[in-house]
Amino acid sequence: MRQNKPDKGWKYKVHEVIYEADTPLGKWFDILLFVLIIISVLLVMLESVKWIDAEYHEILFILEWIVTILFTIEYIARIVSIKQPKNYIFSFYGVIDLLSTIPLYLSYIFAGSQVLLAIRSLRLLRVFRILKLVRFLGEASQLKNALKASRAKITVFLFAVLILSVILGTLMYLIEGDEAGFTSIPTSIYWTIVTLTTVGYGDIAPITPQGQFIATLIMLVGYGVIAVPTGIVTVEFGKKSQAQKTIGDKHFVHVNTQACRNCSKEGHRDDATHCYNCGSEL
Amino acid sequence: MRQNKPDKGWKYKVHEVIYEADTPLGKWFDILLFVLIIISVLLVMLESVKWIDAEYHEILFILEWIVTILFTIEYIARIVSIKQPKNYIFSFYGVIDLLSTIPLYLSYIFAGSQVLLAIRSLRLLRVFRILKLVRFLGEASQLKNALKASRAKITVFLFAVLILSVILGTLMYLIEGDEAGFTSIPTSIYWTIVTLTTVGYGDIAPITPQGQFIATLIMLVGYGVIAVPTGIVTVEFGKKSQAQKTIGDKHFVHVNTQACRNCSKEGHRDDATHCYNCGSEL
Amino acid sequence: MRQNKPDKGWKYKVHEVIYEADTPLGKWFDILLFVLIIISVLLVMLESVKWIDAEYHEILFILEWIVTILFTIEYIARIVSIKQPKNYIFSFYGVIDLLSTIPLYLSYIFAGSQVLLAIRSLRLLRVFRILKLVRFLGEASQLKNALKASRAKITVFLFAVLILSVILGTLMYLIEGDEAGFTSIPTSIYWTIVTLTTVGYGDIAPITPQGQFIATLIMLVGYGVIAVPTGIVTVEFGKKSQAQKTIGDKHFVHVNTQACRNCSKEGHRDDATHCYNCGSEL
Amino acid sequence: MRQNKPDKGWKYKVHEVIYEADTPLGKWFDILLFVLIIISVLLVMLESVKWIDAEYHEILFILEWIVTILFTIEYIARIVSIKQPKNYIFSFYGVIDLLSTIPLYLSYIFAGSQVLLAIRSLRLLRVFRILKLVRFLGEASQLKNALKASRAKITVFLFAVLILSVILGTLMYLIEGDEAGFTSIPTSIYWTIVTLTTVGYGDIAPITPQGQFIATLIMLVGYGVIAVPTGIVTVEFGKKSQAQKTIGDKHFVHVNTQACRNCSKEGHRDDATHCYNCGSEL
Repeated sequence: MRQNKPDKGWKYKVHEVIYEADTPLGKWFDILLFVLIIISVLLVMLESVKWIDAEYHEILFILEWIVTILFTIEYIARIVSIKQPKNYIFSFYGVIDLLSTIPLYLSYIFAGSQVLLAIRSLRLLRVFRILKLVRFLGEASQLKNALKASRAKITVFLFAVLILSVILGTLMYLIEGDEAGFTSIPTSIYWTIVTLTTVGYGDIAPITPQGQFIATLIMLVGYGVIAVPTGIVTVEFGKKSQAQKTIGDKHFVHVNTQACRNCSKEGHRDDATHCYNCGSEL
Repeated sequence: MRQNKPDKGWKYKVHEVIYEADTPLGKWFDILLFVLIIISVLLVMLESVKWIDAEYHEILFILEWIVTILFTIEYIARIVSIKQPKNYIFSFYGVIDLLSTIPLYLSYIFAGSQVLLAIRSLRLLRVFRILKLVRFLGEASQLKNALKASRAKITVFLFAVLILSVILGTLMYLIEGDEAGFTSIPTSIYWTIVTLTTVGYGDIAPITPQGQFIATLIMLVGYGVIAVPTGIVTVEFGKKSQAQKTIGDKHFVHVNTQACRNCSKEGHRDDATHCYNCGSEL
Repeated sequence: MRQNKPDKGWKYKVHEVIYEADTPLGKWFDILLFVLIIISVLLVMLESVKWIDAEYHEILFILEWIVTILFTIEYIARIVSIKQPKNYIFSFYGVIDLLSTIPLYLSYIFAGSQVLLAIRSLRLLRVFRILKLVRFLGEASQLKNALKASRAKITVFLFAVLILSVILGTLMYLIEGDEAGFTSIPTSIYWTIVTLTTVGYGDIAPITPQGQFIATLIMLVGYGVIAVPTGIVTVEFGKKSQAQKTIGDKHFVHVNTQACRNCSKEGHRDDATHCYNCGSEL
Repeated sequence: MRQNKPDKGWKYKVHEVIYEADTPLGKWFDILLFVLIIISVLLVMLESVKWIDAEYHEILFILEWIVTILFTIEYIARIVSIKQPKNYIFSFYGVIDLLSTIPLYLSYIFAGSQVLLAIRSLRLLRVFRILKLVRFLGEASQLKNALKASRAKITVFLFAVLILSVILGTLMYLIEGDEAGFTSIPTSIYWTIVTLTTVGYGDIAPITPQGQFIATLIMLVGYGVIAVPTGIVTVEFGKKSQAQKTIGDKHFVHVNTQACRNCSKEGHRDDATHCYNCGSEL
């Protein structure tokens, strides 16, 4: 089907390789991009480990430049090969791609000794490159839908947990005081949430018998409370999986990963010849 | 429907703004109240942080007075605009509203140097203002119902957990003793619940091999045990969501947020002209 | 129905009060027993707190004697009022009742200075009195059945978790070694279970990068693993609650708390005149 | 059925005892093997505890040799009694059986003082003997199927958790820095996963107010996030248990534990006379 289309210039070919995953070249491009992102995130991580940075600083620096240049090429190719660049530049992925590319350049532009520390933080922005991986999470739609459907309930639930935490936190601040680490109400609330969620660091822990008694109650409440989001999400998953069984197949058509060259929308039918969003030829 | 009603004086209008959320003014009042509560709770929190209180004591003090005066006005307006003030004053929200308003006044009435510490605690009562937010949790009815329906099972479950904790706690007290922090049976029970609920602070931890073995068993039991409330709540949620699907709409009528001017009950039908509780005209 | 029966002597009346909860006296006896058990367990707990024992030793001692005498009377009354005492003495509750009563007497019989420490442990046996509360857990049958039905699956699951823990624990012992607290394989397995169950004391924590990496993997596995018992129990609860809906009421008859005077079996039909187990008149 | 078969030599008998669990001798062999594996794993564990190894080194050493010799006999018997030994040697269990047997021999072959440390690790390989227990986990098929069916969803979920952890970990590294223990990005990511999974060791804990605020958010996210795998697995279990009810028995035939003497495949029909895999006579 695809092969029958006439040659439409290098822009078309670049678009097909970069934006789509149906052709062999498109698949190779996706795999390469995936590996490149993983490498670039590992570079940021390794750089933050003092002894690795001390020993291998130059290698890391060179690799970082290679990765940045490749990302720059990819970014330019994405802008050039699309008909309406604005649609890409201001999309979620467009912003992420830009943020993933510029930190190294910026660190040269603002290279005064004064702002050195701020730049260090700036360069860590490169870790957001991992968000480029979200592209490959396409299969997650069922998870996303289940979470979206239970969003209202989870908001109400978190709101109730916060009210509870403020009151219990203040109570523990009154009972325990400074010695046990409950130095202020915000700190006590932090401790309460650490306990309610069953994380329990132990950096702050009650030492008075009354405090330990209240803590025990908070934990038992946390027991019941942790059941609520699980209950919500499980029921939502159950609905989806029942829906899948009962709704007939005729309502579903297979969509491919082809993206419109004009508006970059994905999810076209296999037999589509025009974009369902802007109507331009595919 | 509402607009057709004749003007019934300022008390009626005040009632409509304060107690109901259907009119634009009522909605604005609710938003304002929401923001005011959040600010007042933040003030209590910030005051408890030593360095903030030291630096910005006066600003916090002035803001606290402004908030208290606004809450006082709200409280008086609520009493004045309702026909039977007793119904409001002794209701849950009436008590909360009073408790949220008086701490600052009380700190002046009992201003002896002797009771200074007790007053400090008293002023922290202002944190209960956050309970005023419960008003906005109206949507939580499904969550509340699911928890209410499984109340009996959860009580039995907590009862069984307590019996288990007492026995396991005593056992660990015998095995571990003072060195590991198991200084008394109540402390050991506290530790057992910390472990069963998978909170695990680590302020107390077994050090003998036997103790670590029993602790391991407790954790594995906690594993099975944590599944029980989740199971209960999930099944309850599942029932509700199935009920919603199968029960026809005819059994449900839409209720609004209008509150009776006489007894302040909410949840009247959209087409109601009299209160379903006391029969007075709406 | 009950009132019509002819007077059958004081033994019959005592049996009715102690073993049954249908008559007003029987109910009062149950409440009294409940309170007595709670008090006696609190006494054991308070005694273990050093400063309380130092200050109030005599009061605790006298109260303990009162409780023990009351339990002795109850135990004798239970044996005397039943037709076949053996059935009670060797039942679960009979053994618990005996264990709850004798520790104080035993501490006088074996009162040599040599065995003082062992006696201290012996007296703590009194905490098993809390098992007498199991009597009041009658309502828990649904919980118990759900757990019983999923027993096989949970056993297999725990078996798999243990195999996993042994291998991962050995791996961590090899990687981390003594410095981080992984002093032996059993200790490492203890740590692995602490991590898998998300308890996480922090008394032992990996310090090498490789160890932290493996620990991260263990936690993520624990994530999936904790879902399994929850899933099993939830499905089991779901089945029960569906069964309750679909099975008609005709298969159920109301049973009361009356216990047979001969064999002490409970759960007789409201209209039963003879024990369903031994056939003796009720 | 089995008894009718003519005597086919000692190899046949040995095969029946070792590979199958239907005959009384086969059952005894399985029980013996089970006990032997448990003992051998306990030996490895006890050896790693310093004071036990110091005191009972010789006894442990002798027992270890006995176990190793028995495993050697079992391994040889398994190879000899099967028609195509390759099928067994390169199967999962074949490799495990070999790995369980050779460590002690290897420690003599490579007995240079230089490689002593490496050998110590090598000998710990014996702990993999516990994987021999997997043989007895046959009943776990429902658990395994439910996990397998939800594998894709759990992979996507873990992938999303990892992306989240990298970003949140980097954020905490920026906010907290070295003092609180966030010494590098990998360490921060380790902390983030410790928090998200509600393990919460407390070896690293935020100390700045901003850090504690972000930590609180991470915990609340972890709350929602922990619900997802539970939801997935619960729904999967629910499906299985429904399927069991609705699918008729006619699609299922009972299979026994008999293994083909030629290719060692298990799961043959009770009335099978030829292996379903290689066609050789059973």
